Amino acid sequence: MDSTSFFTSLGTSFVIFVVLMLLFVLLLRKPGNAVVYYPNRILKGLDPVQNGYVSRNPFLWIREALSSSQADIIRMSGVDTAVYFVFLTTALGIMVFSGFILLPTLLPVAATDHSVRSNNNTREWSFNDLDKFAMGHVGERSLRLWAFIIATYWVSFVAYYFLWEAYKHVVDLRVEALMSSEDRAEQFAVLVRDIPPVPKGESRKEQVDSYFSRIYPETFYRSMLVTNNREVNKIYEELVGYKKMLERAEAIYARSKETTPDGPKPTHKTGLFGILGEKVDSIEFYNEKINDLTSKLEAEQKVTLKEKQECSAIIFFNSRLTAASAPQSLHFPMADKWTVTYAPEPRQLIWANLPTNFYERIIRRYVIYTIVFVTIFFYMIPIGMVSALTTLSNLREQFPFLKPIVDQPTIKTVLEAYLPQLALIIFLALLPKFLLFLSKAEGIPSQSHATRAASGKYFYFIVLNVFIGVTVGSTLFDTLKSLQHKSSIVSLLGKSLPGSATFFLTYVAMKFFVGYGLELSRIVPLIMFHLKRKYMCETDAELKEAWSPGDLGYETRFPKDMLILTICLCYSVITPLIIPFGAVYFGFGWLVLRNQALKVYVPSFESYGQMWLHMHMRVVAALILYQLTMIGYFGVKKFYYTPLLIPLPILSFIYAFVCNKKFYRFFQSTALEVVPPGELKEVSNMEIIFNSFIPPCLDGSAVKSHSEDALSQFSRSASNV
Amino acid sequence: MDSTSFFTSLGTSFVIFVVLMLLFVLLLRKPGNAVVYYPNRILKGLDPVQNGYVSRNPFLWIREALSSSQADIIRMSGVDTAVYFVFLTTALGIMVFSGFILLPTLLPVAATDHSVRSNNNTREWSFNDLDKFAMGHVGERSLRLWAFIIATYWVSFVAYYFLWEAYKHVVDLRVEALMSSEDRAEQFAVLVRDIPPVPKGESRKEQVDSYFSRIYPETFYRSMLVTNNREVNKIYEELVGYKKMLERAEAIYARSKETTPDGPKPTHKTGLFGILGEKVDSIEFYNEKINDLTSKLEAEQKVTLKEKQECSAIIFFNSRLTAASAPQSLHFPMADKWTVTYAPEPRQLIWANLPTNFYERIIRRYVIYTIVFVTIFFYMIPIGMVSALTTLSNLREQFPFLKPIVDQPTIKTVLEAYLPQLALIIFLALLPKFLLFLSKAEGIPSQSHATRAASGKYFYFIVLNVFIGVTVGSTLFDTLKSLQHKSSIVSLLGKSLPGSATFFLTYVAMKFFVGYGLELSRIVPLIMFHLKRKYMCETDAELKEAWSPGDLGYETRFPKDMLILTICLCYSVITPLIIPFGAVYFGFGWLVLRNQALKVYVPSFESYGQMWLHMHMRVVAALILYQLTMIGYFGVKKFYYTPLLIPLPILSFIYAFVCNKKFYRFFQSTALEVVPPGELKEVSNMEIIFNSFIPPCLDGSAVKSHSEDALSQFSRSASNV
Repeated sequence: MDSTSFFTSLGTSFVIFVVLMLLFVLLLRKPGNAVVYYPNRILKGLDPVQNGYVSRNPFLWIREALSSSQADIIRMSGVDTAVYFVFLTTALGIMVFSGFILLPTLLPVAATDHSVRSNNNTREWSFNDLDKFAMGHVGERSLRLWAFIIATYWVSFVAYYFLWEAYKHVVDLRVEALMSSEDRAEQFAVLVRDIPPVPKGESRKEQVDSYFSRIYPETFYRSMLVTNNREVNKIYEELVGYKKMLERAEAIYARSKETTPDGPKPTHKTGLFGILGEKVDSIEFYNEKINDLTSKLEAEQKVTLKEKQECSAIIFFNSRLTAASAPQSLHFPMADKWTVTYAPEPRQLIWANLPTNFYERIIRRYVIYTIVFVTIFFYMIPIGMVSALTTLSNLREQFPFLKPIVDQPTIKTVLEAYLPQLALIIFLALLPKFLLFLSKAEGIPSQSHATRAASGKYFYFIVLNVFIGVTVGSTLFDTLKSLQHKSSIVSLLGKSLPGSATFFLTYVAMKFFVGYGLELSRIVPLIMFHLKRKYMCETDAELKEAWSPGDLGYETRFPKDMLILTICLCYSVITPLIIPFGAVYFGFGWLVLRNQALKVYVPSFESYGQMWLHMHMRVVAALILYQLTMIGYFGVKKFYYTPLLIPLPILSFIYAFVCNKKFYRFFQSTALEVVPPGELKEVSNMEIIFNSFIPPCLDGSAVKSHSEDALSQFSRSASNV
Repeated sequence: MDSTSFFTSLGTSFVIFVVLMLLFVLLLRKPGNAVVYYPNRILKGLDPVQNGYVSRNPFLWIREALSSSQADIIRMSGVDTAVYFVFLTTALGIMVFSGFILLPTLLPVAATDHSVRSNNNTREWSFNDLDKFAMGHVGERSLRLWAFIIATYWVSFVAYYFLWEAYKHVVDLRVEALMSSEDRAEQFAVLVRDIPPVPKGESRKEQVDSYFSRIYPETFYRSMLVTNNREVNKIYEELVGYKKMLERAEAIYARSKETTPDGPKPTHKTGLFGILGEKVDSIEFYNEKINDLTSKLEAEQKVTLKEKQECSAIIFFNSRLTAASAPQSLHFPMADKWTVTYAPEPRQLIWANLPTNFYERIIRRYVIYTIVFVTIFFYMIPIGMVSALTTLSNLREQFPFLKPIVDQPTIKTVLEAYLPQLALIIFLALLPKFLLFLSKAEGIPSQSHATRAASGKYFYFIVLNVFIGVTVGSTLFDTLKSLQHKSSIVSLLGKSLPGSATFFLTYVAMKFFVGYGLELSRIVPLIMFHLKRKYMCETDAELKEAWSPGDLGYETRFPKDMLILTICLCYSVITPLIIPFGAVYFGFGWLVLRNQALKVYVPSFESYGQMWLHMHMRVVAALILYQLTMIGYFGVKKFYYTPLLIPLPILSFIYAFVCNKKFYRFFQSTALEVVPPGELKEVSNMEIIFNSFIPPCLDGSAVKSHSEDALSQFSRSASNV
């Protein structure tokens, strides 16, 4: 890519960005769009606009974002979001502090070297104005490479410093959040899995209650048995569906009565898609269905609570200390029985995963790791097969009516080029969901943990396939064809990187211009909302659903940021020009997401910053990749002092080891020091906490009083608690 | 080695054994030897002989050993010894059950194969009568090898079964021991290390007390600060030494007065070794010294308690549950501060190791692993250097007066052969002590843990150097010289093993004939005791010290047993004749040690079977070594179906993984289920527990009442506890 096309691409991105910003400023002012631009504030019961009026100043949001404090973020969006901003700040800090030293020194050092142009013919890429400022422009064995060695060390130490400070900061955040005296349900509950089979003559309830009341005679409150809710949940969801449809039918009827007071009641057909079958009065039909299902649900609830008890339970203590220390302790001599773990927030509990067996979880985990590994490395094979199966000639045979269209030469060319791409696009769009599904299939009991696991998997995919794929992929091909000599992966990476530098410069620029432009302007959600409002929504609940903003989406957002950080780190010394691009990406990202976190997204769970473990580990992995790349590239430059860089990755491993030893445990388990003291003695408060864990499909007051079932308060043997 | 020399060697061992047994039977009857043969019973206040009379029956000890139950062993020698017997039984079980199948099938299968004798010339060892019964006698690619494949599987599955049952049995033992309601000091105490620096305006005592009384307001009792006792301990030991000498002088004086009522008081010279210097009255001199040191000790005790407080403490709770769960929990958000671990028994606490820093411990561990690795692999180098330096010519130059002796040809030959051996013998004798010293230097706070660590290190040394050294060493040399083609370590091991089979047969036989003969007859301790009694002991305390039997010595005993088990496993299929030898070794060992555990050795600590983790892991390691060896040997036999053995080591790894997951945690930490319920509310009992942890050098009642020091009960801030 030469300079002209680089600037063209940059310009295009910038123009799109300007258009998006103009749209944003215009659309923001319409009061009808408030639910798209301020849903988080609206859901929290705040005025959409902070001071009650829409300012004429289009840059107000920037001022608001900049002036918002960390406490604001935690209040509006939770600790997890605050930790995500710590990550963005850390990345920004690394970019800025690296740039301060690298740009003023390396650019002149590289640009004033004229030794390479003479033996230009050995290079595959030509030197344009941009490449002049890169390490590739410095001659082999040149003494100027010393500056680049020092720069490599500088970037590493800047990264260590910022990561270390960030880790301490995140620990403080987590400490503060856990210490807050607010009563949270999960502070009083623990999750027990792998309960051994019920002894004869006892019920499951008695078994669990007597076990925990013996060990914790003073702090055990009561237990909730986990049941197999598949059946009851199916009925419940059907019921909820019919209730929604009833509401909708009633709203339509009410509206039609306004215009024609004696108009017909709404009707529909009961068959497929409402097209076939008998025509019925909708309101009557739904009411009937709801009555049917309600009694069916109650019957099934009773059966579930009494007969579908599983080998898992939630235990409630009236002491935070017990609930915080129990999951860290071994209860049964064999670690594969009575395993106690922290209870996640009620809203993020994955009920279906709770009864999975100890060994089943281990086996599932390894099976899924294998599947992910295969997916990451060989994902092109199924896509290739799919596109081979759906070639034009196949399509023509299968669907003869397509023949006249397909046979036109222009359409044919487009389709032939397009079909494999389509398969790839669909695959990439579905991948995060697939990875989340896989992570849940591991038997993880909490939503946030599954999200973290999916995010980690997506990171490997994106870094391996986009970054290493783009850089090494092409070179590997060339190497195999022409050079024929074996080279290690490190030196291969070193050789490949410079060729793709300009590509990644435009890639980063596109990400912040177009990516964050779309993010801020919310054009797609806005259009979707208006379409839904016009053609589908009848009731208020449906309208609310149409603008519900969702959460920040860590599982894809963070790996994508990590890709940019990996690119920027790896190129920081080779092509220092990438540093300002990276700085703008993280700086502008911080600004835009600050706005989105305060006003748009609503977090769907809170894990008190456990995500940071993943973030930190992956940044260190990127750092090590960068250091290895540099060793490879200095090797390619035939610099005598390349071995001077070998201590760097070793240092990174020691750094990671120390971090792990020092910080890791706190993100896995609650330090007893930060547990707020005092017990919760009032039964009424404990009942609120207990009830918050009852899944909606079992939540019927008629059921709860039934004794001897999974939710009952007392078992015969442990009634003295 | 041919059959004749094999039987000669076997016969010699047997003769030695018979002589030792005769000596044992004769010496056992003399009442004066009771302290050598029954010290454990005497120290426990029991009659030396069970029924009060020395039976004429020389096999009585066998009946007693066989009829003793596991409960007897636990009562007389503790859980650790019982676990050691579980190991012996397991090894015996593996040998016996393997032998039942392998001996009647493999011996005829091998002996009736005549295919090899024809191409005998390719073998380096000749077939004697013994080798006929070995796998080496079966021809290459012979179908008879199928029997050996099945035998390999059989031995593995027998081992899995016995190990699994043993593991469950040991868990039961540990559960029972931990659940016993007897109050043990370590059940109420935990060890805190890495306490951060004292905040301004607080004393260390206040810092510790307020920290733990805040987290455990109801169960915290009091704390004991760890102090730097080096100075005070030196004074204390000097004092104890003088007290002993005074006692001795008084005993001599009292005895001399009996014969000559007005005889001279004992005197000695104060200089070097009591040879030089002024002549003084011993009793007076020692009394003076003791008075001096007592006041010096008291002063130093005060200084130590007040000023030499370290960053470590022992915390006492009045609840067993808290003391059992606290070490499993994280207390401070950073895991490198306020680390809480289980308190070992007071008698096995290594005080000097308590204040070592978190990272210092990690670094020390890795440094020591490196030292051990170097020692194991290159221990011949320093020995070689030492013997090179102490060659005869060097000796002659250094000590000219030796010349006339050294120059005699016979003496010269003997010495030249003997000097390197001597260096090796000294090295081997000192090695276990050196490894124990290294393990203590890791910063391990308990004696039993250090012993386990030393034992593990010794195992690697002995298996690598004796077993692999003997087998592979010689073959490697031959291979390097003659064959010149590369072979993997596995196939190398397979090739080397058969050559050393007869050597190891006699080795195992010698171990049980001579080794256990010496063990049972206790000839060496007996002679030592009588010599000491005659020439050195003056007081009762000295006499008691002379016959104090010591403990079972796991750190060397277990690795040596493991060597035999490794040898027997690895040869079980190749030379099935070794199986009865192994069975006799473990069976006879069980019998002899049962006697020794009941009557002789006194355990010096109790770890409730934590040693089993090491034992089990190393048996599994031996099993994997055996399976790899078999793959190698079948490869040498050019058997087509050798890959059928590959699942075996994989199976062993899975087995080890499952065992680890299921059992490991319980040996590291106490399962809360087995903690006896109830709290200890009486202060008097808690004071007994507290006092048992005070090291002898600080144990002065005058000191304890002093406030604000390391042992004081109340600190200003936490005086409400």
